[in-house]
Amino acid sequence: MGEKKIKLVIAYDGSAYHGWQRQQNALTLQQVFEERLEKMLGEPVSVFASGRTDAGVHAQGQVAHFTTSSQLDPSVIAKGLNSLLPDDIFVREAMYVAEDFHARYSARRKSYEYRILNTMAPDIFQRRYVWHIRKKLDNEEIRRSLSLVLGEHDFSAFRSSGSGNRNPVRTMYRADLIEQKGGLIKIFMEADGFLRHMVRNLVGTLVEVGLGKMTAEGFGAVLKSADRRMAGPRAPAHGLFLVKVHY
Amino acid sequence: MGEKKIKLVIAYDGSAYHGWQRQQNALTLQQVFEERLEKMLGEPVSVFASGRTDAGVHAQGQVAHFTTSSQLDPSVIAKGLNSLLPDDIFVREAMYVAEDFHARYSARRKSYEYRILNTMAPDIFQRRYVWHIRKKLDNEEIRRSLSLVLGEHDFSAFRSSGSGNRNPVRTMYRADLIEQKGGLIKIFMEADGFLRHMVRNLVGTLVEVGLGKMTAEGFGAVLKSADRRMAGPRAPAHGLFLVKVHY
Repeated sequence: MGEKKIKLVIAYDGSAYHGWQRQQNALTLQQVFEERLEKMLGEPVSVFASGRTDAGVHAQGQVAHFTTSSQLDPSVIAKGLNSLLPDDIFVREAMYVAEDFHARYSARRKSYEYRILNTMAPDIFQRRYVWHIRKKLDNEEIRRSLSLVLGEHDFSAFRSSGSGNRNPVRTMYRADLIEQKGGLIKIFMEADGFLRHMVRNLVGTLVEVGLGKMTAEGFGAVLKSADRRMAGPRAPAHGLFLVKVHY
Repeated sequence: MGEKKIKLVIAYDGSAYHGWQRQQNALTLQQVFEERLEKMLGEPVSVFASGRTDAGVHAQGQVAHFTTSSQLDPSVIAKGLNSLLPDDIFVREAMYVAEDFHARYSARRKSYEYRILNTMAPDIFQRRYVWHIRKKLDNEEIRRSLSLVLGEHDFSAFRSSGSGNRNPVRTMYRADLIEQKGGLIKIFMEADGFLRHMVRNLVGTLVEVGLGKMTAEGFGAVLKSADRRMAGPRAPAHGLFLVKVHY
């Protein structure tokens, strides 16, 4: 029968985890998945995700894959995993994929959502999932800035150090802001890939724009500069959701 | 100058607390408030709420009062409290009230909301705030049942034991169900008072109706019976919110 490759689509609340990737002295999602799968399948399992996600970042549609000699149907594996996993993780789908599928290297696009709560009072029930900003943001100026990141750009200005020498050019397919009721603001971004901390660095700079500390033109100049020192501070992790990985 | 009485309107996420009322070996909201106020005001403080709320129950608008010799403006007290309180509690308002005001005994009505998520898959981001029920509920039959509790009734069938010999007759001013997007169901109830566990016992029985285990007529018979053994199981605490206390 041989080995089979299984793809998982996963939602998790990142609050309690130090990101996806295994670490020595901190609980990570990769560790949780590998331990639960090994328990269920009775064999060592390595689980690879589409990307690491930082500590505290959430996912609605993270994708991961693993290889197993188990003949259990993927739907049975999903059910079994969900019964073993803590209640801040949920496997939405599990399916067989071709041998050459790789959660990270086969990904063509990723979508992220960043949530800001722009109200005087905090909402304690959303405290783990939004960046609370009291001062009224200029959403129109943020939208004007967002339109500037569409298309192909060198995003070095929004890349954190420690991300190696990889090509900093990415193509942004969607970048918009949606105002919802109750002062909730959602910023969506979809690109063929994201540099380290890119969404959070972008959002942090967009908030500077929204606060009037920078104009949309200034934002465009930061993008063009390709200089990290020009950008604003990084937005906190807990407002960020990995929404979908496209293959 | 003498003592002044201050009213607080409070929101809290009940997940981490054993309800409002002080207990020997468990963390309660009353303890948290009294400790923080004593720290801030430099005098012993007793804080009285409109009702106890059970362990795990949330509040958007709990009301409490205390008496103090402090001359600090209530708005300053609210700000100070919010800087001292953990991020799962927020003081929405603080104001002077008359000497004869009592958070519990002056209350004329209370409003509660109970949230059910009626979807196949759980929503991990709402897991602390909804009762997740997979099987599709018959919301129309629940609505028909809700209409039966409007007005004055003996609610003994929905009262938990240990609630003493108080009069079990209450007047329900509002009882309805609102379907929101994404399978979220909100059940609202407003009455001149609620017996112990009354909302949760009502919701547990309404869910039996929604699952087809009981008809609206059967529900009406349970209400009429005034017999706790006739009602359904109690709904879990974490779907319940104290929305507002009316004075």
